[in-house]
Amino acid sequence: MILTVTLNAALDVTYIVDALVPHSSHRVTAAFERAGGKGINVARVLTTLGRPAMVTGFAGGPNGRLIRDELHAARLQDELVPLKADSRRTVTVVSRADGDATVFNQSGPHIEMSEWTDFVARFTRLVRDARVVVLSGSLPPGLSSDTYAQLIRLAAEAGAATILDTSGDALFKGLSAGPSVVKPNAAEIAQVTRNTEPADAAAELRGLGAHTVVMSYGPDGLHAIAPQGSWRAAPPERLTGNPTGAGDACVAALAAGLASGETWPTVLREAVALSAAAVPCPVAGDFDAGLYDQFRTTVSVESTHAPDTH
Amino acid sequence: MILTVTLNAALDVTYIVDALVPHSSHRVTAAFERAGGKGINVARVLTTLGRPAMVTGFAGGPNGRLIRDELHAARLQDELVPLKADSRRTVTVVSRADGDATVFNQSGPHIEMSEWTDFVARFTRLVRDARVVVLSGSLPPGLSSDTYAQLIRLAAEAGAATILDTSGDALFKGLSAGPSVVKPNAAEIAQVTRNTEPADAAAELRGLGAHTVVMSYGPDGLHAIAPQGSWRAAPPERLTGNPTGAGDACVAALAAGLASGETWPTVLREAVALSAAAVPCPVAGDFDAGLYDQFRTTVSVESTHAPDTH
Repeated sequence: MILTVTLNAALDVTYIVDALVPHSSHRVTAAFERAGGKGINVARVLTTLGRPAMVTGFAGGPNGRLIRDELHAARLQDELVPLKADSRRTVTVVSRADGDATVFNQSGPHIEMSEWTDFVARFTRLVRDARVVVLSGSLPPGLSSDTYAQLIRLAAEAGAATILDTSGDALFKGLSAGPSVVKPNAAEIAQVTRNTEPADAAAELRGLGAHTVVMSYGPDGLHAIAPQGSWRAAPPERLTGNPTGAGDACVAALAAGLASGETWPTVLREAVALSAAAVPCPVAGDFDAGLYDQFRTTVSVESTHAPDTH
Repeated sequence: MILTVTLNAALDVTYIVDALVPHSSHRVTAAFERAGGKGINVARVLTTLGRPAMVTGFAGGPNGRLIRDELHAARLQDELVPLKADSRRTVTVVSRADGDATVFNQSGPHIEMSEWTDFVARFTRLVRDARVVVLSGSLPPGLSSDTYAQLIRLAAEAGAATILDTSGDALFKGLSAGPSVVKPNAAEIAQVTRNTEPADAAAELRGLGAHTVVMSYGPDGLHAIAPQGSWRAAPPERLTGNPTGAGDACVAALAAGLASGETWPTVLREAVALSAAAVPCPVAGDFDAGLYDQFRTTVSVESTHAPDTH
């Protein structure tokens, strides 16, 4: 089982407008609501792939109720811990004119210490059955920046692999606990290292504790720097669209590959194919099954480096 | 008592961001929620002024519950009729960089015929105690464009004056029922008349049935064309900011003046002072009490025309 952690789950609201014109009034021509937050998106992709996945984290208040109702409707396994405060919403405004998305992220509710205690107890119980634990997204107010580091240690003690997909201090502190995989993009790497050269930056992240670094080059693919070697995978064409959806699909493929014990070239091919298939979908957690099947055979993977002894 | 009708009540959500950049991701630094819709904003201003006001219309679902909770907290008299569907939200993004607002309006829930029956029964009971009925804002799906016309007739039968503040077909059809006052701005006038010259357009609106036309010139003040004569009122300085808040404060002052039987020059002075005092407030329904006191003595009012026999 793959356990995805979404500490700052959100009700993701999408508004469709004809065109986004700042400082004017817009008629919303269609509105969609669903449970979101990166970990939930990852679990949704895994569930579509037929891989057993479970959702934990926090949800509370009227938004929390809507999040849980939607998880239930989508047949995702809900192990969210109740919260007194109201869960956040994110609003994504999609302009019909150019298909582009403008996103507004609320910071989320404050987590009380007693709620954190409830979460740790739940996580400790769930992680026993998990092969892989996915830790994704921002931390809500009230949790310290070493929260992911604490959870990575608990997962390691239970024998589960961990994938950390976050940024800033939460990423930096998380590295020290030795996550199996981190998946930063260029901006996230720049926040925690002083290296702009990708190979140097990846080495620095591994020096800080990450076993494998999967660097995202956005529409140009992925680069994995693992103890077994380094590989670069690129999609057959350069696609642009929904970067959040692409990132979460990538993490889902990494988790599925780790859970199955696949080799890095195979994991990387799947991850690039699945994220490229998610790019055209306006809502994170979705992917185009036809494109996925097509990309699985056309993604290129090449070795860039010999194994190291790190 | 002044009865305000908000058929498409909303949970108004305000997001503060550093600067609005289309097609990017924004951190919401602060978020506020409150009951909204133009009629509710008008009732809020009246309540702050110490004038008895009552809120009716529709509210339902999780958003409806939040709307009613907030009305209760703000001590507004809630006579909203329950709805099966969820009330809408509006999202206003205020950019801290320039203070400007970008608004996203959902169209609102569909009103069932049985719910409309409940509303008519409630309105008929409430209007007996009303001196003035304020009919503000858009119509939700399911209600025909002559809805305001029907309510204006019921109010007139009960002896109440009516103020209609809407646009498009709802305004055009409403005129035929003879509202006491309509308060269109330039864009709203252009939608229902073919006249771009203000005096001609006002005459056309009165020809279509309105007793008095109060034309809004935005930051340049108001122009009332009434059976008793015509007056122009202007604020001492040209203020820009929140046009929704200014319009709703203006209607509140018109309703208060009509309920007290004030003369048009007095009503107009109050309306310009109150709307100018609302302009700097980011949230509709608020006004700056100090500015209001100051503007009440500095707004200019001049007669522009002799009484007519219309």
